[in-house]
Amino acid sequence: MRDIPSYIPPVKVGAVMRGGTVCEVVHSRHEQFQTGDLVLDNSMKEGWNEFAVIAGKYCRKLPPLGHHQTISMTSYLSVLGITGLTAYFGLLQVGKPKAGETVLVSAAAGATGSVVCQIAKHVVGCKVVGIAGGRDKCRWLLEEAGCDAAIDYKLAQNPSQFQKQLRDALKKVSSRGVDVFFDNVGGYILNETLRRLNVKGRVVVCGAISAYNEDPRSTNIVAPTNYTALIPLRAKMEGFIVTDYAKQFKEARKNLAQWIEEGKLTFKEDIREGLERAPEHLQALFSGGNTGKLIVKIGDPITQHTTTGPALSKL
Amino acid sequence: MRDIPSYIPPVKVGAVMRGGTVCEVVHSRHEQFQTGDLVLDNSMKEGWNEFAVIAGKYCRKLPPLGHHQTISMTSYLSVLGITGLTAYFGLLQVGKPKAGETVLVSAAAGATGSVVCQIAKHVVGCKVVGIAGGRDKCRWLLEEAGCDAAIDYKLAQNPSQFQKQLRDALKKVSSRGVDVFFDNVGGYILNETLRRLNVKGRVVVCGAISAYNEDPRSTNIVAPTNYTALIPLRAKMEGFIVTDYAKQFKEARKNLAQWIEEGKLTFKEDIREGLERAPEHLQALFSGGNTGKLIVKIGDPITQHTTTGPALSKL
Repeated sequence: MRDIPSYIPPVKVGAVMRGGTVCEVVHSRHEQFQTGDLVLDNSMKEGWNEFAVIAGKYCRKLPPLGHHQTISMTSYLSVLGITGLTAYFGLLQVGKPKAGETVLVSAAAGATGSVVCQIAKHVVGCKVVGIAGGRDKCRWLLEEAGCDAAIDYKLAQNPSQFQKQLRDALKKVSSRGVDVFFDNVGGYILNETLRRLNVKGRVVVCGAISAYNEDPRSTNIVAPTNYTALIPLRAKMEGFIVTDYAKQFKEARKNLAQWIEEGKLTFKEDIREGLERAPEHLQALFSGGNTGKLIVKIGDPITQHTTTGPALSKL
Repeated sequence: MRDIPSYIPPVKVGAVMRGGTVCEVVHSRHEQFQTGDLVLDNSMKEGWNEFAVIAGKYCRKLPPLGHHQTISMTSYLSVLGITGLTAYFGLLQVGKPKAGETVLVSAAAGATGSVVCQIAKHVVGCKVVGIAGGRDKCRWLLEEAGCDAAIDYKLAQNPSQFQKQLRDALKKVSSRGVDVFFDNVGGYILNETLRRLNVKGRVVVCGAISAYNEDPRSTNIVAPTNYTALIPLRAKMEGFIVTDYAKQFKEARKNLAQWIEEGKLTFKEDIREGLERAPEHLQALFSGGNTGKLIVKIGDPITQHTTTGPALSKL
């Protein structure tokens, strides 16, 4: 949203707020879409509104969901959506963990982090340490999301205490250090972790939510002073954008859906109501108030394909 | 030297200061070495002293230099030594520049940086921008070291002014941004450059001389707050240690020597006299007082193989 150079332009004042959506077709002039079809719009051309005109090329018809026990249409916004795909490609193609390696994940109870944890643990066979805020999230990480250890960063009063938590967690899983750090947070969590990387360690720079609301020149931002540890460790920090992997999305969604069916991958969605409260819901991402993918439901829920016409029809 | 964890232990108080040396054998109990042989000791087990007992396995006999016009025995401490090899492997195997790409080098007039500039320009075929302190160094970069543009960072009063210098230099060489940044310096030079990387840009983290004498917690260190630029740019920062490539040193030295013979690679050595002034000479690295590889000559210079026995015999 901020007016700084990035990979997508800032949202203009007065414009519709961007967001991926699952929506129902209420009228179509495109031969591939019929009224009642559910479509995914990840074009970022539409977002927070009740009705929108969308060009067919930006839509993707959702496949029939009938045979799935656990996949619903909202899955296409969460585990099969951008956040799940971000976890998939960031971990497997940037972090490239090997079986037996130690993977550390920040914002581990979030929509992306939780998928990273489970792929690392149940698909690749890594030791996984998750970082999250609060006892409930940490319990969920240990009991549901495949983590071997969890760090409640809210218990640390300062970076040194976090460093101690990290050391203790690594000891608990019998790891000397971190092979892959999948970082969604930045700040002191990144800075302290740089000191705990193993030789040839990899930091997947996925996000830096601790800094998104800060002025880049603010002294509130804890910058990664310890980046010089990359030298003796022959380690790297690498950023990525999930859309670079668009050609592999289909295969990734197939794998993710299969892992869900096999019980290797569970996910949480935090579905909240009301377009008018969407700005407030968005804030939850910055306070850590959500658990799992945050989805805003607009109008009545759609639970199956319907052709009842132009009712409230956007999810 | 500092007592912090790194890839080699700190120098102990009262111990001999470490340093690679070219020295003459004055007495040998090893069948492969005879009195008068010149040997390279990069073991880091010996260093700043006039005479030393060195195990044969840590020595490398220097090949005959007679047929070379430009390579002297000190070359094995400079362009064919650790600093030249650091340039070679850091640029070619970590930075991996392609012809036509833009390479930025900090401490570009230094022993490592100057070799990076010339390999990038004359071997790979890149556009090269060098950063150095002072007009003389910058002129040397442009006239001798293959740089297409040079930035005198001492003319910048603050990071914004450096940013402008960088923008102007890139404009001068018709580059949108930096593909490979070979960084020996760190600090604001790194932080500002992160904003000027191209998509898929690579930062070769070779050194951070701006921070070596600072306490890691000091607020004098300008940390790379802009590392988040790695995300939209799909860019990376990667550290390396030259000794990891030891098996390829022979081939690298052969290539470097050939480039010197072909006139593609020139180098400077800043040879200073006197063991007793070595600490003062070392300081020049931090003030930018040297040009090219800083070498301290101990005792009389050795200009050719001699067998005159145990005279002053270490270079």
